[in-house]
Amino acid sequence: MSAPSLDFWFDFASTYSYPAAARIGPLAAEAGIQLRFRPFLLGPIFKAQGWDSSPFNLYPAKGRNMVRDIERLAAERDLDFALPQRFPQNSLMAARLALVGGDEGWIALFTRAVYVAEFAHGADISDRQALGPILQSLHLDSQKIFTRIEQADIKDRLKRQTAEAQARGIFGAPSFLVGDELFWGDDRLEQALAWASRG
Amino acid sequence: MSAPSLDFWFDFASTYSYPAAARIGPLAAEAGIQLRFRPFLLGPIFKAQGWDSSPFNLYPAKGRNMVRDIERLAAERDLDFALPQRFPQNSLMAARLALVGGDEGWIALFTRAVYVAEFAHGADISDRQALGPILQSLHLDSQKIFTRIEQADIKDRLKRQTAEAQARGIFGAPSFLVGDELFWGDDRLEQALAWASRG
Repeated sequence: MSAPSLDFWFDFASTYSYPAAARIGPLAAEAGIQLRFRPFLLGPIFKAQGWDSSPFNLYPAKGRNMVRDIERLAAERDLDFALPQRFPQNSLMAARLALVGGDEGWIALFTRAVYVAEFAHGADISDRQALGPILQSLHLDSQKIFTRIEQADIKDRLKRQTAEAQARGIFGAPSFLVGDELFWGDDRLEQALAWASRG
Repeated sequence: MSAPSLDFWFDFASTYSYPAAARIGPLAAEAGIQLRFRPFLLGPIFKAQGWDSSPFNLYPAKGRNMVRDIERLAAERDLDFALPQRFPQNSLMAARLALVGGDEGWIALFTRAVYVAEFAHGADISDRQALGPILQSLHLDSQKIFTRIEQADIKDRLKRQTAEAQARGIFGAPSFLVGDELFWGDDRLEQALAWASRG
């Protein structure tokens, strides 16, 4: 029998994916669950339902609550939190880089580092200037990787992955899939892991 | 020093208010927290942000996840769950009745009974035919109470309470207020109670 597994679907622009990314690795390892990192873009999914920005911008009361809620969550979990000045961030380049990281085995560390830069330090994560130092901090050849993500197969793969997310019923991030069972939100991480363990 | 207190803001049409209503009484009592039941209407708040129905209807993927999520939650907590055929239900009459229940001391039992009828048994809760038997099951004079809610002061009070909810930043239900600290969603009930206890 193969090890239980869980797919972690995330968008680098998503605030609640940050606390999930901060703890999913250790929690899955502890439970003996194989983790697959699946970066995708919420933008096209939001656009399909008529939203041209994050719901946290479109609905200001919801946005204010999100910030306060993550502040409380961060305090409980000993995380830092600072919303970047421009929100949501453009997550396209980070998502393409993550796909390469999936192929090359550094996606978990990269994902965590991007979320820390963005939501612990409030950094812009939209371009090479921001993402280069993150790659270098992981001892990677950033020049080579930036060239790699310009190739069509990576661009296409991200589009396909986003289409797959939408087809599988994903409407927000973070989302967790165990087979076809969908769990939405950092609040459901424990439940999703328990579901995966049960097999 | 007065006892710590928490305001429980709910709309009878709200699905996630059902599991919250099922456990908030015992949890608050255990923690020594005074509970104030604050019925309001989400409709006008949704309308103000451009929604003419529940977001679970407007965004079908979100709606499907809500049903599945509450099924899993209900299984974990040993609750029954059945979405009523018409969703969302018209909660106006139930909310007016609850205001009378607040004055007369039966709001907690009434609130719980309405949610059980609606979301454990999938009943319509929009009119006298549905709500009369609930009042009678609490040994109340339903005729007298139905006459009472036709008076202008009850109608006005519900409008004011809904306006207050909106003014205080409430955008969904259930919501919990401890002073000005707002917690949204059944998932935040424990956190809200802990906040109230801390004083």
